[in-house]
Amino acid sequence: MRLRFKRGTFSRKNIALPPPVVLVLLYTVFIIIGALVLWLPISHHGDIGLSDAVFTSASAVTVTGLVLVDTGAAFTGFGQAVIAILIQLGGIGLMTTAVLVLGALGIRVGMPQRLILREEVNQTSISNLMVLVRIILVIALICQTIGAVALAFVFVPQYGWNGIWQAVFHSVSAFNNAGFALHADSLSQWVGNPVVNMVIPLLFIFGGIGFIVLGDIYQKRSWAKLNLHSKLMLSGTLVLIVWGSVAFGLLEWSNPQTLGPLSTTDKLWASWFQGVTPRTAGFNTINTAGMHDSSTILTITLMIVGGGSTSTAGGIKVTTLAVLLLATVAFFRRRTVLHAFGRSIGLNEVMKVMALTTLSMLLVLTGIFLVSISHDGEFLDLAFEVTSAFGTVGLSRGATVDLDNFGRAVIIFTMFIGRVGPLAIGFFLATRSVPRVKYPAGQVHLG
Amino acid sequence: MRLRFKRGTFSRKNIALPPPVVLVLLYTVFIIIGALVLWLPISHHGDIGLSDAVFTSASAVTVTGLVLVDTGAAFTGFGQAVIAILIQLGGIGLMTTAVLVLGALGIRVGMPQRLILREEVNQTSISNLMVLVRIILVIALICQTIGAVALAFVFVPQYGWNGIWQAVFHSVSAFNNAGFALHADSLSQWVGNPVVNMVIPLLFIFGGIGFIVLGDIYQKRSWAKLNLHSKLMLSGTLVLIVWGSVAFGLLEWSNPQTLGPLSTTDKLWASWFQGVTPRTAGFNTINTAGMHDSSTILTITLMIVGGGSTSTAGGIKVTTLAVLLLATVAFFRRRTVLHAFGRSIGLNEVMKVMALTTLSMLLVLTGIFLVSISHDGEFLDLAFEVTSAFGTVGLSRGATVDLDNFGRAVIIFTMFIGRVGPLAIGFFLATRSVPRVKYPAGQVHLG
Ligand SMILES: [K+]
Ligand SMILES: [K+]
Repeated sequence: MRLRFKRGTFSRKNIALPPPVVLVLLYTVFIIIGALVLWLPISHHGDIGLSDAVFTSASAVTVTGLVLVDTGAAFTGFGQAVIAILIQLGGIGLMTTAVLVLGALGIRVGMPQRLILREEVNQTSISNLMVLVRIILVIALICQTIGAVALAFVFVPQYGWNGIWQAVFHSVSAFNNAGFALHADSLSQWVGNPVVNMVIPLLFIFGGIGFIVLGDIYQKRSWAKLNLHSKLMLSGTLVLIVWGSVAFGLLEWSNPQTLGPLSTTDKLWASWFQGVTPRTAGFNTINTAGMHDSSTILTITLMIVGGGSTSTAGGIKVTTLAVLLLATVAFFRRRTVLHAFGRSIGLNEVMKVMALTTLSMLLVLTGIFLVSISHDGEFLDLAFEVTSAFGTVGLSRGATVDLDNFGRAVIIFTMFIGRVGPLAIGFFLATRSVPRVKYPAGQVHLG
Repeated sequence: MRLRFKRGTFSRKNIALPPPVVLVLLYTVFIIIGALVLWLPISHHGDIGLSDAVFTSASAVTVTGLVLVDTGAAFTGFGQAVIAILIQLGGIGLMTTAVLVLGALGIRVGMPQRLILREEVNQTSISNLMVLVRIILVIALICQTIGAVALAFVFVPQYGWNGIWQAVFHSVSAFNNAGFALHADSLSQWVGNPVVNMVIPLLFIFGGIGFIVLGDIYQKRSWAKLNLHSKLMLSGTLVLIVWGSVAFGLLEWSNPQTLGPLSTTDKLWASWFQGVTPRTAGFNTINTAGMHDSSTILTITLMIVGGGSTSTAGGIKVTTLAVLLLATVAFFRRRTVLHAFGRSIGLNEVMKVMALTTLSMLLVLTGIFLVSISHDGEFLDLAFEVTSAFGTVGLSRGATVDLDNFGRAVIIFTMFIGRVGPLAIGFFLATRSVPRVKYPAGQVHLG
């Protein structure tokens, strides 16, 4: 990972827009263009209005996967390809595109990317951006190709030539944690298929763990040498997968609407799948609306957590949860500092975590609040859809389809924030200023 | 506030139990004794089983106010008096009792109390405990007497001599934020009564703002001189009251089950009352179960926030919310420190806030999760009861009555933690150790 480009390669002129604004504009433009193309008669079989097209485009660009219609039935092959492209743009393309475009515009970006690469290459030149872009594209291409080939072994025997397209589409959708599937019941017909149950989750776990972790593993190839972030991500992901799958299996084992009718092997496969999918993937192999309230709450919490930073996943992120829990443990061990794996975590990070979590909770609550004002559905279902949108997960208990235009707008906005928010916040994380005024310390009682 | 006693007055012998354990034992003993007395035939009219008695006692000692029966109809005058005493013990008595008992046992307590008094008297002697106890008792006595006298003007004309008892009971219940009322519909028959609408909320706001703030105001008598904690509490409480009342009024204005049938004046009184009561008081003047989902969510958030530290209120506390929001604002202003009213708030406080909030959220989620496993009610109602128990609020949409013994046990446990947790954590806050090992800093990505 040596540097190839000098600083200034991309610094041609200065534009006054702050990077987060550019990101927001970029995403908005992608969604609008996507919506217009999906609205064209060539894209669908006649049932897609402008509002549906906007929703679908927003869902694809934000890699969420909430849908109003059956993607496979309502859209033509062309429309499906447009959706796949929007997913790529949203999942990995947009990050790299943003880096390139902003670089080309001469805006002093790269702060978050530099931050990202700091531990890997210990360099802060803007040229790292290009290295990052290349890493991202190469990893994405390799993973999606392998995934498509593996899935073809399932889809081609079943669907003939169309199976190839299905394999490509689902591979793209899975790696980008988009959750779009070409069947109305998502992947339910393969609930017990070992290939689908291994390839799809591997793709979305890979895509959702973050490029920092993948790069770190590639470089170090030894647990002991991995940096703190990678260790937290890997151990946190493992714990969440085990917890999610075991809890889901136990809660749903004899539910006649979900696991009940399945064979024991299929039950285990489905529990595994449903345990990993809520953390941003959004595919399902059982009927989401048939789950018990308890497993629905479990799924909601996993959806809020999400995946890893600098990945195709959403949510507050696994590391944020880890810091929250570490702070709690430190508190009860009467420590004034956090540490994990022999590294300390600055109180500065703790403040970031708190700000991010508070914001996220406020956002989710506001979303649920607004949807519940405008829509008189089952509360748990509304909460489920909003958290699914916030975490860009895409799982649905069916309420999204029933929403009016106001409710749809809330979901679109939530998906948008869920995807653009973390990227935009990246800029803030990297460019914080030290206070100029020093205030005397005050005391606040909290207990 | 000079000191009267020397250190050592209460240091007779050493006992190995840590103070939080003593607190837990003390509360448990109070609940058990209360339950046994309430179970006696003299306490009730025949419909109270042991499980009901335990629940009622726990609800009273933890000053929650969730009930299984109509307190006024099911319990005799003796039983009601027992409940009033349990409320006093739980609300203010237990704090002072704990101080006294622990002091008498010679246990090195007083840390949280010393912490509490530090800014007021700038002294750390254990004798401050006695000063604190006296302040608490005097304030409580004065407020409750004034409250009872004022309420008597409403209750005596309506109920004759029994009105005096009603005035005393509701004054005790209000000041202690207990939420127990002697009528099945709480205070709904006085929905438009100005005296009830002013006296009851004044009592629970006074009781719920915290002795630190009351003492600070008493001492300084000037906004500019108040300490940071008081300023945050007062401004935060004001904002929450305005927000709660205005939002409630707007959301429920034409709901036929709540404000709809009322006159405009009564609507305004009810909005005011329902806006302030969720932050731990627990009385209601409209039908809680008739609220829209949106106002229910609003109420849930207010119940989680609660009142002030060192008060009869529960919840995560107004100051905790304030620090959460300040951290979020600081984050977006790219600051690395928090400040408010010209004082800085240490990152150490931020970690405490995060730990407390994380714990609280985990607790509430676990409670909802457990209740939803065992009970197939409307999800929002279950979430409402659990948050009501956690914040020791006592508002109910009716689900508590339907719970089986397991569900009741979860609610009792949640109320217990909601009340004892903050007290127990007070000890932790005051006795944190500085780390012995210094770890190298690691970096975690969160965005
Ligand atoms: K997704
Ligand atoms: K209460």
